[in-house]
Amino acid sequence: MNATQLEILTEAIVARLTDAGEFPMLSACPDEAGCAGNCASTCPDRTQALVDVGAERIQGRLGMLPPVEGFARTIDHTLLKPEATEAEIAQLCEEAATHRFASVCVNPTYVAFCAEALRGTSVAVCTVIGFPLGATTSEVKGYEAYRAQENGATELDMVIPVGRLKSGNDDYVRNDIRAVVEAKKPGSIVKVILETSLLTDDEKVRACRLAQEAGADFVKTSTGFSTGGATEEDIRLMRRTVGASMGVKASGGIRDRDIAERMIAAGATRLGASAGIRIVRGETADGDGY
Amino acid sequence: MNATQLEILTEAIVARLTDAGEFPMLSACPDEAGCAGNCASTCPDRTQALVDVGAERIQGRLGMLPPVEGFARTIDHTLLKPEATEAEIAQLCEEAATHRFASVCVNPTYVAFCAEALRGTSVAVCTVIGFPLGATTSEVKGYEAYRAQENGATELDMVIPVGRLKSGNDDYVRNDIRAVVEAKKPGSIVKVILETSLLTDDEKVRACRLAQEAGADFVKTSTGFSTGGATEEDIRLMRRTVGASMGVKASGGIRDRDIAERMIAAGATRLGASAGIRIVRGETADGDGY
Repeated sequence: MNATQLEILTEAIVARLTDAGEFPMLSACPDEAGCAGNCASTCPDRTQALVDVGAERIQGRLGMLPPVEGFARTIDHTLLKPEATEAEIAQLCEEAATHRFASVCVNPTYVAFCAEALRGTSVAVCTVIGFPLGATTSEVKGYEAYRAQENGATELDMVIPVGRLKSGNDDYVRNDIRAVVEAKKPGSIVKVILETSLLTDDEKVRACRLAQEAGADFVKTSTGFSTGGATEEDIRLMRRTVGASMGVKASGGIRDRDIAERMIAAGATRLGASAGIRIVRGETADGDGY
Repeated sequence: MNATQLEILTEAIVARLTDAGEFPMLSACPDEAGCAGNCASTCPDRTQALVDVGAERIQGRLGMLPPVEGFARTIDHTLLKPEATEAEIAQLCEEAATHRFASVCVNPTYVAFCAEALRGTSVAVCTVIGFPLGATTSEVKGYEAYRAQENGATELDMVIPVGRLKSGNDDYVRNDIRAVVEAKKPGSIVKVILETSLLTDDEKVRACRLAQEAGADFVKTSTGFSTGGATEEDIRLMRRTVGASMGVKASGGIRDRDIAERMIAAGATRLGASAGIRIVRGETADGDGY
């Protein structure tokens, strides 16, 4: 591309962004609001317009909070209890479509059902692999990941083999994660659940590194079925360990907006919660959440 | 076989059973002890001798308690917590071999390890399928069952899809169980975990019937990872529903001999417990089991 072509292209993009007031990104930036250029937080819709015309990266501070409606896009709307009925799963999908959550997170038995229910929406189907004990074999996890994607899942939240990590068998753990990563189709992502409540800090750091070495996309704190959920300390530790190159998902006990904000401030980029609606509405939790 | 051959064979068997005092089954039955012919309970060693020469059935009353050493053969020595280490699993196998438990019950990741450790003993390797939520797909459960047997398991404790049962989708549940039954190799058995603490009595009965229709070998109460374990009422209900043709396994909260005896009296033929040693020693539980 020569200089003239570049100039023409730039003009075309600027014209599109400012055209007819539809994308007034460049013509009316409200910088006087003191947002210091954090467009994604201050002006999510206008930022989305930039993404829609091809922007791959948007400037932002670490821990920058999403706008109220942006919270929805960080939330995996989750229902994993074994007794969840088909009717409850149908309702989960409806809620996710209404609030434009990032995904529904369901057990593999309901993946095909959700993929059908969410066809044509922006909501992904997230499922769980080797869940919640992480103690089936690596080959079964790989097969489960493969089948889940055949049924329509694009996000795979797998549990590490906790006992193998505690046995010091890091090779086993890395290969176990890799078995799921290798089953990944283009466009799918793998999140690695550490089950932090069972681990020492040293084990959390080792598990993060193994997930990174195995090529996973996210590390995630908890299944919601063990002795505890996400803590700000763990999110900070995990973010510090994996750097900016991986996602960090906080899950377990994300009961309301206040907790959600604190997790994002600590470095989380995704939240797993059954309380998604409460979070986007800013209501306070009165009971126990996932 | 003609009458003469039959006579010769009968004489040979009687001779073997009474020979040299080694198998004095027929020569000195202590019926004056008031045991009313319940040989298996009163004289387990002598009963074993009958089994060893080919007896397939032994008379017994329903709820007949096994002798102290017989308890061991009803117990699946169980360690399913996700953080269990290789060293702990090795110890589990040693204990099972020492006490001659029916099996060790471990997660699939440890099946090959246990099969190797228990080679040459009478202890089977039992593993869990779709555990503990029962909410992966039927095809993954079938594959998991297949692979577990390749690795050396002969007992497969699968969890039903609880949410499908609660949705009234009995066909799904029956086919789900059948997927594991069809993966069964000769000599293997399938136990179907209902997770009774999540079910109504009607659902427990329906689940028992579906397990029976699908060709399973046992029904089993609990995973030990839900809201409750085995109760005598549930064991009685399950036994009443499946009749004498299936095994009934009580699991979850079988902490000591007293509870074990009550479960067997209620109709259980197998016990899943982490407290197997305490049970065979007759010690009382001071804490929480399984």
